[in-house]
Amino acid sequence: MITSDILIIGAGPTGLFAVFEAGLLQLKCHLIDALPQPGGQLAELYPKKPIYDIPGYPEVLAGELVENLMEQIRPFQPGFTLGTRAETLEKQDDGTFIVTTADGTKHKAPVVAIAGGLGSFEPRKPQLPGLEAYEDKGVAYMVKDPEIYRGKRVLIAGGGDSALDWSIFLADIASELTLIHRRTEFRGALDSVEKVQELKDSGKIRLITPAEIVGLGGDGKVEFAEVQITGSEEAAERLEIDAFIPLFGLSPKLGPIGNWGLEIEKNAIRVDNTLDYQTNIPGVYAIGDVNTYPGKLKLILCGFHEATLMCQSAYQRIYPDKRYVMKYTTVGGITGFDGSRKEAPKAVVRSID
Amino acid sequence: MITSDILIIGAGPTGLFAVFEAGLLQLKCHLIDALPQPGGQLAELYPKKPIYDIPGYPEVLAGELVENLMEQIRPFQPGFTLGTRAETLEKQDDGTFIVTTADGTKHKAPVVAIAGGLGSFEPRKPQLPGLEAYEDKGVAYMVKDPEIYRGKRVLIAGGGDSALDWSIFLADIASELTLIHRRTEFRGALDSVEKVQELKDSGKIRLITPAEIVGLGGDGKVEFAEVQITGSEEAAERLEIDAFIPLFGLSPKLGPIGNWGLEIEKNAIRVDNTLDYQTNIPGVYAIGDVNTYPGKLKLILCGFHEATLMCQSAYQRIYPDKRYVMKYTTVGGITGFDGSRKEAPKAVVRSID
Ligand SMILES: Cc1cc2nc3c(=O)[nH]c(=O)nc-3n(C[C@H](O)[C@H](O)[C@H](O)COP(=O)(O)OP(=O)(O)OC[C@H]3O[C@@H](n4cnc5c(N)ncnc54)[C@H](O)[C@@H]3O)c2cc1C
Ligand SMILES: Cc1cc2nc3c(=O)[nH]c(=O)nc-3n(C[C@H](O)[C@H](O)[C@H](O)COP(=O)(O)OP(=O)(O)OC[C@H]3O[C@@H](n4cnc5c(N)ncnc54)[C@H](O)[C@@H]3O)c2cc1C
Repeated sequence: MITSDILIIGAGPTGLFAVFEAGLLQLKCHLIDALPQPGGQLAELYPKKPIYDIPGYPEVLAGELVENLMEQIRPFQPGFTLGTRAETLEKQDDGTFIVTTADGTKHKAPVVAIAGGLGSFEPRKPQLPGLEAYEDKGVAYMVKDPEIYRGKRVLIAGGGDSALDWSIFLADIASELTLIHRRTEFRGALDSVEKVQELKDSGKIRLITPAEIVGLGGDGKVEFAEVQITGSEEAAERLEIDAFIPLFGLSPKLGPIGNWGLEIEKNAIRVDNTLDYQTNIPGVYAIGDVNTYPGKLKLILCGFHEATLMCQSAYQRIYPDKRYVMKYTTVGGITGFDGSRKEAPKAVVRSID
Repeated sequence: MITSDILIIGAGPTGLFAVFEAGLLQLKCHLIDALPQPGGQLAELYPKKPIYDIPGYPEVLAGELVENLMEQIRPFQPGFTLGTRAETLEKQDDGTFIVTTADGTKHKAPVVAIAGGLGSFEPRKPQLPGLEAYEDKGVAYMVKDPEIYRGKRVLIAGGGDSALDWSIFLADIASELTLIHRRTEFRGALDSVEKVQELKDSGKIRLITPAEIVGLGGDGKVEFAEVQITGSEEAAERLEIDAFIPLFGLSPKLGPIGNWGLEIEKNAIRVDNTLDYQTNIPGVYAIGDVNTYPGKLKLILCGFHEATLMCQSAYQRIYPDKRYVMKYTTVGGITGFDGSRKEAPKAVVRSID
């Protein structure tokens, strides 16, 4: 059982910043995300694209913003349960909640903050007979830990940024890296396309296009794939592999959160925006893209504000008898749970003579 | 008459960011501030101190944040009326507003956004007979344009950061720079105190401490000050000067805004936080530190969110028949009023062979 003061579902920008605001109030957070890495839409959908409307940043790459948020929350030592979906929410008799993830991990907290964005990112799976039987037995739809592919024969399928970028990254780690795509054209950042061309020319990546995987086989784990060249009269060819990673994109689905008894409106969770972004279940808040209220804008900067107000309310819920007096960070500095301390240099009082 | 779509009173971080959000909606802004420079509290009270709770910035100096905001809004070419206070608000028959500043400038707009923070920054003036008669005749409480002191004999009074920093800055511009303080100790950033010591040692700044100005004289403009060394038996000495700048701090006062018929609560303007931060006068909004609502936090990041929602509502008010469809900046890019254009590099679609 993992315990925390605030259990945050969703490690997008909103969930991440909530850790910081909670930390200022000395509340400890744990985050759950279906993705293998923090950052939500920014990390999964547009890590290398610039955002122009983060206040104080005339321009920042989405991936950089996530890195900066991770650095900002570091003193508050958040816990992470990544690569698995929050499935159930149960209220205990003592008023706390237990959230269980798909992998069976249980998380307990007096406050739950749902920062689930447009929903849990779920892979688009190819139509392939017998595919599911090999899941986690050589077949994976996201790269959770690249090291498990060291020295292995890896087959990647897909034609977008993820397929390109993971092919580049794993070309160095795998013993053989094959990239297969049903078209000859790839769609992605210019430098990624060029890099794959280069690795193909130098023999580090084997490219098979236009082609599709039409079958998988192996005894208890994936051992070969059947590759059909598109438009060819010849039969599918067998390719010996240790791993198959189809990267056809991840798309968000509200998923199980829809069944937790929360008021759902326009595929989002209705909250009380007049005060603290609490849902119809007291103690459960919804912040960022996942919530809705009159005038709601699905913007990163709005999630930051909502997270901040939510934490104040959570503090009152956890410590009903304490009165928290807000101190500016400039004045009070930052004291991390790791004992670290940041503070403004003090003014000196000194004679000049 | 200066016209704009949104007239913003207060050029602190909230007012500045409102220019950006308005610009995304193709609305043009003009800002009024009593201070000679933009930045509000950040520029006036703690420009060299770090802030730790700006989302995505593990640490940023207040002055840097202001610079970044100025850079971010540059494409939207805001107008500025600085160094003068907004005194009156009048509603016209056509529904627009006219705001007049202390210097007589008139500003007209269909929407007024009050981003006045804790109020208009007003100088603390020394108790000195005849002082007011010399205001703008050699006596100034803020440095609006340092160039007017070129080649002049300047006297600065004060013992804090402003007195130190302006002494350093003007030492290079003035023909003579005298700094006077009623104590021998100064209070400020270490490097400022050290720099003044250095300039004093090299003869570029004349220091008189502990001492006070007890009189001013001159014909139609200030020509001399009477300096009394504290504790000395000798009579005050006459110091020939062209300018006297007492820098005893600026403090914010809600001021005339309090008489505009707005609902005032706890020295702030009550707004409707359930929707758009509008005040009891339709078309007049209040955002940032200057407003109040249940759960209000006087934080910079909250002002950013409020400014964003306010602009959406202002757009509807100005264009009741248009429906604005929000586009992410990452997707739509930024088109400045100056014809500038920023946008994400496009993905390429390209064969690899
Ligand atoms: C192409 C694109 C460009 C954009 N450009 C901008 C822009 O310029 N400016 C701007 O402000 N916004 C922009 N946005 C929107 C912005 O990305 C979102 O507002 C932001 O990501 C919302 O953050 P969040 O933390 O609320 O949710 P998300 O970023 O969506 O993160 C939510 C996380 O919760 C996880 N999750 C959900 N349910 C579960 C569950 N049951 N179990 C486990 N995990 C779960 C998801 O996997 C996800 O990682 C853009 C979006 C896109 C797609
Ligand atoms: C020492 C200190 C440390 C702080 N640290 C932090 C921190 O770490 N994090 C954080 O989030 N916040 C911090 N704050 C608070 C933060 O500075 C404010 O929340 C922020 O400045 C509010 O921005 P604003 O734009 O709403 O108002 P302000 O910055 O107050 O700007 C308002 C402007 O409006 C002008 N104005 C008002 N009335 C008129 C008028 N009638 N005519 C002309 N001009 C007018 C004023 O002159 C002023 O320049 C700190 C404040 C102080 C003093």
